[in-house]
Amino acid sequence: MKQVIVITGASSGFGRLTANALAKAGHTVYASMRETTGRNAAVVADVEKFARDNKVDLRALELDVDSQDSADVAIAKIVAEQGHLDVVMHNAGHMVFGPADVHARTTGRTLRHQCAEHPACQSCGVAATAQAGQRIAGLGVEQQLGRRHAALSRALFCRQGRHGCACRARELSRWGIETSIIVPGAFTGGTNHFAHSGSPADRARAAKYEAGPYAGFGEQIMKAFSAIVPPEADAGSVADAIVKIVDMPFGQRPFRVHIDPTQDGAEVAFAVIDRVRNEMLHRVGFSDLLHPKANG
Amino acid sequence: MKQVIVITGASSGFGRLTANALAKAGHTVYASMRETTGRNAAVVADVEKFARDNKVDLRALELDVDSQDSADVAIAKIVAEQGHLDVVMHNAGHMVFGPADVHARTTGRTLRHQCAEHPACQSCGVAATAQAGQRIAGLGVEQQLGRRHAALSRALFCRQGRHGCACRARELSRWGIETSIIVPGAFTGGTNHFAHSGSPADRARAAKYEAGPYAGFGEQIMKAFSAIVPPEADAGSVADAIVKIVDMPFGQRPFRVHIDPTQDGAEVAFAVIDRVRNEMLHRVGFSDLLHPKANG
Repeated sequence: MKQVIVITGASSGFGRLTANALAKAGHTVYASMRETTGRNAAVVADVEKFARDNKVDLRALELDVDSQDSADVAIAKIVAEQGHLDVVMHNAGHMVFGPADVHARTTGRTLRHQCAEHPACQSCGVAATAQAGQRIAGLGVEQQLGRRHAALSRALFCRQGRHGCACRARELSRWGIETSIIVPGAFTGGTNHFAHSGSPADRARAAKYEAGPYAGFGEQIMKAFSAIVPPEADAGSVADAIVKIVDMPFGQRPFRVHIDPTQDGAEVAFAVIDRVRNEMLHRVGFSDLLHPKANG
Repeated sequence: MKQVIVITGASSGFGRLTANALAKAGHTVYASMRETTGRNAAVVADVEKFARDNKVDLRALELDVDSQDSADVAIAKIVAEQGHLDVVMHNAGHMVFGPADVHARTTGRTLRHQCAEHPACQSCGVAATAQAGQRIAGLGVEQQLGRRHAALSRALFCRQGRHGCACRARELSRWGIETSIIVPGAFTGGTNHFAHSGSPADRARAAKYEAGPYAGFGEQIMKAFSAIVPPEADAGSVADAIVKIVDMPFGQRPFRVHIDPTQDGAEVAFAVIDRVRNEMLHRVGFSDLLHPKANG
């Protein structure tokens, strides 16, 4: 069944790959990003070219996940054009790389963005639902990266703290919104893994760290973590997995899917974490939250 | 051995209990909090009275964990007075309670504070170390709460996303700083568990949620989670455990300690998470980060 889908952070990486794959699978896809008339104007042109070349319904859309107003406008536009919105894929993220202490002092945009778990974006789906008083988005797809690098805080992903998506799922199920969480491993090819990461604003402090017992640490980490990614790792496999999930029937989609060529152990840890959380919900009488309500 | 200790968020709850217990154990303890001359003036007087009554070295100290300047001034004051700082206990936190979407829109102080993992505070120890060019704090004690409520995002703790403390430990070990993470369960007596929690600033939106399929959910959660705390649960047991850890020899302290009368499963999940992270460090050649360097 053809679905209306919005993806955040779709200017590059997994977001872009998934937007293309879902459009090719026959869905109406809004590839959202910020600065569509600014530095992403060339990306917008490229998105439009892809749509023409492949005769698919793929559209670039302005959406800055740091701005609730921007998110509200974007969602309203989709609903106005399509009458509904079926799938929200939370994908936008920004990696920062450097000593935790130095980043911790950058209390500006980057850290808020990173740690606030996309304040605007995360509420797109549920906000649309609450405002309209009816179920609009029937599926939320979460792209959760960062738990691998959680071994080392130098690489802080936007989604590092994204316990949030597992929790939020429980606040969406009674609205009739299903959640699938995608956990990709590191794909250093096909995405802009380290290349687009932010660096500490406080260079003087960063330099102090580089002169200490962790001298050269940043480069060592990048090399070490790139080295464990097998050469056959294909970032497109993440997009393919999401296409399959979107095409599954409501209520039968997996809660969490790992696509990780490095086998970093996240699937072991998350199996336990998810289970422990579920058991707590059973224990305190909230078992119903574990499945989306059919007529929410 | 007598240690010089600073505790953040020591105006109430675990912070205050631990400050008292450590002072009684013979240490010099700075019970830090914000607004020492404002709304916490009475707490400061009470801290001073406790010190006099028990003839212990307990001092109130101004430290707002949301302000790097405030943290810098506080740490400098301790070092000026004592010549060194041995233990930093990151304890400050603030719980917010309400629909995730509503809180997500509150991009002001509360959310930043919550999600940024105490930008200023978390760097107290390492900042002091880096600036002085020598090891000052030899132990960081982390109080990590919130993973229980991670089952439900309505109760978002400041420390919900605190993967951070496990990660940061790896950035401190070469500086010769040991980390012990304390994971208390919910203690609804003896702390200000739900009582001091923040409520959504956007009351109109919160009301919309209360009118939806989650009507009454907030109260149900509070009741359900309070009901599983056994009556014998004693918040003082957390303070006692921290006193024991502080008194242990350097390099032999436990990485993580759970004190949880509700047996919520966190100790099962964290055992796996910590192990998976450690194995990744071994795999990529960073095994040395798992133990604090003796002469860091």
